[in-house]
Amino acid sequence: MGRVTDRRGIVRIDTAGRPGADARPGGDAPAGGTGGTSVRAMDALAGEEPMEIRVGRPGVGKRPLAVTMRTPGADIDLALGFLLTEGLITESADVVTALLCAGSDEPNTYNVVDVTLAAHVPEPAVDPARSFYTTSSCGVCGKASIEAVRTRSHYDVRADPVVVQATDLVAMPERLRDAQKVFERTGGLHAAGLFTATGELVCIREDVGRHNAVDKVVGWALREGRLPLAGHVLLVSGRASFELVQKASMAGLPVLAAVSAPSTLAVDLAEEAGLTLVGFLRGPTLNVYAGAERIVA
Amino acid sequence: MGRVTDRRGIVRIDTAGRPGADARPGGDAPAGGTGGTSVRAMDALAGEEPMEIRVGRPGVGKRPLAVTMRTPGADIDLALGFLLTEGLITESADVVTALLCAGSDEPNTYNVVDVTLAAHVPEPAVDPARSFYTTSSCGVCGKASIEAVRTRSHYDVRADPVVVQATDLVAMPERLRDAQKVFERTGGLHAAGLFTATGELVCIREDVGRHNAVDKVVGWALREGRLPLAGHVLLVSGRASFELVQKASMAGLPVLAAVSAPSTLAVDLAEEAGLTLVGFLRGPTLNVYAGAERIVA
Repeated sequence: MGRVTDRRGIVRIDTAGRPGADARPGGDAPAGGTGGTSVRAMDALAGEEPMEIRVGRPGVGKRPLAVTMRTPGADIDLALGFLLTEGLITESADVVTALLCAGSDEPNTYNVVDVTLAAHVPEPAVDPARSFYTTSSCGVCGKASIEAVRTRSHYDVRADPVVVQATDLVAMPERLRDAQKVFERTGGLHAAGLFTATGELVCIREDVGRHNAVDKVVGWALREGRLPLAGHVLLVSGRASFELVQKASMAGLPVLAAVSAPSTLAVDLAEEAGLTLVGFLRGPTLNVYAGAERIVA
Repeated sequence: MGRVTDRRGIVRIDTAGRPGADARPGGDAPAGGTGGTSVRAMDALAGEEPMEIRVGRPGVGKRPLAVTMRTPGADIDLALGFLLTEGLITESADVVTALLCAGSDEPNTYNVVDVTLAAHVPEPAVDPARSFYTTSSCGVCGKASIEAVRTRSHYDVRADPVVVQATDLVAMPERLRDAQKVFERTGGLHAAGLFTATGELVCIREDVGRHNAVDKVVGWALREGRLPLAGHVLLVSGRASFELVQKASMAGLPVLAAVSAPSTLAVDLAEEAGLTLVGFLRGPTLNVYAGAERIVA
């Protein structure tokens, strides 16, 4: 069943001929000739498995809404966060139950999250324009028309008066990395960290897909009754794309910060939504791409 | 209309108080008090815009099949590569015409690629189980069932007898970076590079989405009559997920190499498909996760 990391046998090659640092006893002897070495070893990899989200009403059979390629763990939160950031639900009262069901016992098993929506929630239209299929890094799947991409937020992010000290912002990436124990083992997981405006880490989630990590944080906040996430900062470990700004906006987050670059559309949506977008948050520096009035240098 | 990069005004903050290296004349004076500096500047960002893929038959109206958030450029190749790696077409004869049509003149315009399929090509089923919506990093969208994820390749990758010298492999990332002029400007684009087995760069494409960069390479190969890509190596600038292995397999590529980590499912699919998967291709070293018999140390 779903594992955050899993080990696989690998061959580690060093063309400079140095012995493999992580080589195990019993590995192949270094190859001669070219001066390169080749050793067998074990490596911990980030887990990636499909998860299906099914939705329905009480007493009615569920139907598949989305499949996401994700790192197992916090699956219920991932499903809830996905439904919220896609605009299908807005509060925890919209969900009657959310259950994780095992798919099968095959090596590449998948899991299914069965979500029973409350009677007052509009039925998600499962048609070509609203059917989902998400992968490791895909957060706005399923809407086969461009006009449908911009999901409208339930919250007025622009009105959030929070201000954040730049000195608090630059301290966040290290706190996120310190909390990312899994990352140290695999080098293959994205992280999303929810911080208070003064830099206290409130929640961290990891995934092979950045958007999944964000959905896991948002789903957690939904379950905890913390939405909207006014006054908070969401930090993501990589780039900031359009979809991450959209998800932040849907959760009522006033500040999204990324360790790496944003895209043009991410900046444009942040400006439109009144959201502060920070990029290249590295060492003592950062770039503010939108909503600079919230950041105090 | 679609641009690979675009400039946006930013505020660059350095909490250590050093003047911004890229500060423009006329920027704000360094802020006092905390010792931090804050300057206005311009920054080049990776373009991200929606692109819709429409398919149909000669003389019949097209219908939307997929929307992908992509970096403009090589849009026809992106559409063709997407159709091929999703298993909807297998050769250039399957496509009568592929036309790029402007969507509108709004600031965030989008483009539409209209693909006319040949009469012998099975009609793509646009239903909940087969409708697509892809984002910056999503390559296997649209299939709302887990069983449908593994698209079967037209080519027998396992039979490819190619061998690659590790010394040729380790030279590829630098060649890719040298060719990535846009990356130098934005820090926000993924690259996919197609190499011969001896390390000659044949084709490079960039995108905010890694899977889009791969689709652009595959679409180019389709147009050029180069499929299957037997005997070649595909190098991607980041991680290797399940979907990238799938796309490589669909294009008949025997070797996929990534600068960063693969996921568990990427390794499992590579083994199943008989594809060689290399990860952490950095400096003089690399890890081989599957198909190590093709790599000579």
